[in-house]
Amino acid sequence: MSTAGKVIKCRAAICWGAHQPLKVEEIEVAPPKANEIRIKIISTAICHTDTLPMEGMLATYNYPSILGHEGAGIVESVGPGVTLIHPGDKVIPLCFPVCGVCRVCKHPDANTCDRVDGGKYIGLMEDGTSRFTCKGKLIHNFLTSSTFTEFTVVAENACAKIDSAAPLNRACLIGCGFTTGYGSATHTANVKPGTTCVVYGLGGVGLSAVIGCRVNGAARIIGVDINKEKFVKAKKLGATDCIDPNDCKKPIHEVIAEMTDGGADYSFECIGNVDTMLSAIKCSHYAFGVCVIIGVAASDAKVSIDPMLLLTGRTVKGAFIGGLKCKTAIPLLVLDYLKNKFSMEELVTHTMPFEKINDGFKLLHEGKSIRTVLDVQKE
Amino acid sequence: MSTAGKVIKCRAAICWGAHQPLKVEEIEVAPPKANEIRIKIISTAICHTDTLPMEGMLATYNYPSILGHEGAGIVESVGPGVTLIHPGDKVIPLCFPVCGVCRVCKHPDANTCDRVDGGKYIGLMEDGTSRFTCKGKLIHNFLTSSTFTEFTVVAENACAKIDSAAPLNRACLIGCGFTTGYGSATHTANVKPGTTCVVYGLGGVGLSAVIGCRVNGAARIIGVDINKEKFVKAKKLGATDCIDPNDCKKPIHEVIAEMTDGGADYSFECIGNVDTMLSAIKCSHYAFGVCVIIGVAASDAKVSIDPMLLLTGRTVKGAFIGGLKCKTAIPLLVLDYLKNKFSMEELVTHTMPFEKINDGFKLLHEGKSIRTVLDVQKE
Repeated sequence: MSTAGKVIKCRAAICWGAHQPLKVEEIEVAPPKANEIRIKIISTAICHTDTLPMEGMLATYNYPSILGHEGAGIVESVGPGVTLIHPGDKVIPLCFPVCGVCRVCKHPDANTCDRVDGGKYIGLMEDGTSRFTCKGKLIHNFLTSSTFTEFTVVAENACAKIDSAAPLNRACLIGCGFTTGYGSATHTANVKPGTTCVVYGLGGVGLSAVIGCRVNGAARIIGVDINKEKFVKAKKLGATDCIDPNDCKKPIHEVIAEMTDGGADYSFECIGNVDTMLSAIKCSHYAFGVCVIIGVAASDAKVSIDPMLLLTGRTVKGAFIGGLKCKTAIPLLVLDYLKNKFSMEELVTHTMPFEKINDGFKLLHEGKSIRTVLDVQKE
Repeated sequence: MSTAGKVIKCRAAICWGAHQPLKVEEIEVAPPKANEIRIKIISTAICHTDTLPMEGMLATYNYPSILGHEGAGIVESVGPGVTLIHPGDKVIPLCFPVCGVCRVCKHPDANTCDRVDGGKYIGLMEDGTSRFTCKGKLIHNFLTSSTFTEFTVVAENACAKIDSAAPLNRACLIGCGFTTGYGSATHTANVKPGTTCVVYGLGGVGLSAVIGCRVNGAARIIGVDINKEKFVKAKKLGATDCIDPNDCKKPIHEVIAEMTDGGADYSFECIGNVDTMLSAIKCSHYAFGVCVIIGVAASDAKVSIDPMLLLTGRTVKGAFIGGLKCKTAIPLLVLDYLKNKFSMEELVTHTMPFEKINDGFKLLHEGKSIRTVLDVQKE
């Protein structure tokens, strides 16, 4: 029996406030309104960004809410005006929507659309309401997606249709973490064949950057991390050298400069620490190095740069989600995945049922997981 | 009677040490050795960078020396191995040489060749000797050029042959100041038609950046300076709006963001102050703004950047001499000048005979000149 047009009762992990575990509750999910899509979430991964509201790190955040922004599912129903996405389509909700009409969307080379909720954290649909309720209370969404739920509702501009052959328990990673690293190499830096790349931080994003560097033909990929256990996986994914800065007698950027005839062509900071950001800038070649900042630092942290580091010819950039316009880029990345252009197996260290979600966060906090994928529902 | 192969006695302005005026003295200029070129300097302009050794700002600088790096002249003679430049050719000595064989020269997008003496300040020819003596003392060169002299000797890789029709009292500006501003817009930022640009600092470099933005088709060029007297000239050269930050009730970057629907496409810092550098970064659009740092700050100054300014999509770059490979780019810029693609008349505020050089520096220090051109010799 079709659920279209009806309120769906289902399970969701609610974040009732900061400093408490998520709670799996029964919620009501209203039908999609105009230009909205209701999605049956099949898989969702846990990303570090989900921990920010849980830890009370976002000053203006609106609780209670349904977190999760790295998911994949199947369209259950669509609201009026949705013409290009249909029930039964496989989709990825977008934490970086593409409205298509704002100044950023019209720019050929930018992806932080006016509709992006990151930074604002309004947590509501475009009409200022929510489709989620629980125990009579309005529940906010997160990053225009909310994937820690069996059903979610997103704007059409926050939904990318993907190939029907895509395995959703892997495709979900393309919604955020994988693309953040991979796209920073293939798109933001646009790594050229034969070049030297340095990746600071070999977590999920850093390893994805390593994959992107390799796919783009980098001749040398140097991974940097203070946890040597990560080196095996990094090398498997394409790193040619791995260095623990604690093993070096000199600052790591000097070691890299010596290894690379004066500096790397590209460097990527995938940690979110202003000291490693400065090191990543310095390890890039003074005359043509490009440093891409991907890691998110504490909100009051500043990176203190000698302008001469730039004047000699360096470029410093930053990007969310690899700088990609997700609505069009994510379906293409899924196709590349299906064509085996890259694998994401090494990134998925754990799989568990949805109700174990807090165990997944525990693994994350203990540094034991790269990505934990939650099986939310069967297809 | 040819002077080729002979020591030439002529006049030069010697910098005997810091904190003293230059002194016009008789010097001896040895003939060019292999791959060197002796040039009869016709015109030279005075650039702010010349003041750094005069004020003792360069810790490792070698005195005595002949300053000047923004000059133009005519080849007097060439050493063995010089085949592409001949006596009688009009040339510009290069403060950014192009050796053609180092990693930077081989890179398509970099110009800080290994042979650049800026930062090192060795002040000698490649063989470790000098072609200048005065009163029995070795005199160092400056930035591989030394143009405050009637004759100089430069390496072939530090010499660009220019069109024989070029007026040397204007072409000399293309050797440094003009190209630094103009090239930062046309090359480093590669300003696109229809865009909005902001130029902080409307001195010679900033005005040249304004010219570059206009030539590249910017729709709006906003000049920023705390000296309103500069606005007339800036508007004449292409600025559409000029703002004195002291007239604003809000920080200038906020004023610009409001004027430009969220921020400029490109911003240029042509002052060398870390506060205006930060403002220039902030005034560029968060999602796609490109900020080019051109001004040279005090050697211990740092610009303190919130990494979130970058993560949203901004790019920050720096460049010397517009990031251009001078040996090939400068002759083309001279041709563009001869084709009236741009004028430099507004940049030359004063012309005086060579022996008045200290008066030229006085005008510079008093903020009364943009460029003073010294007539060194008749052609």
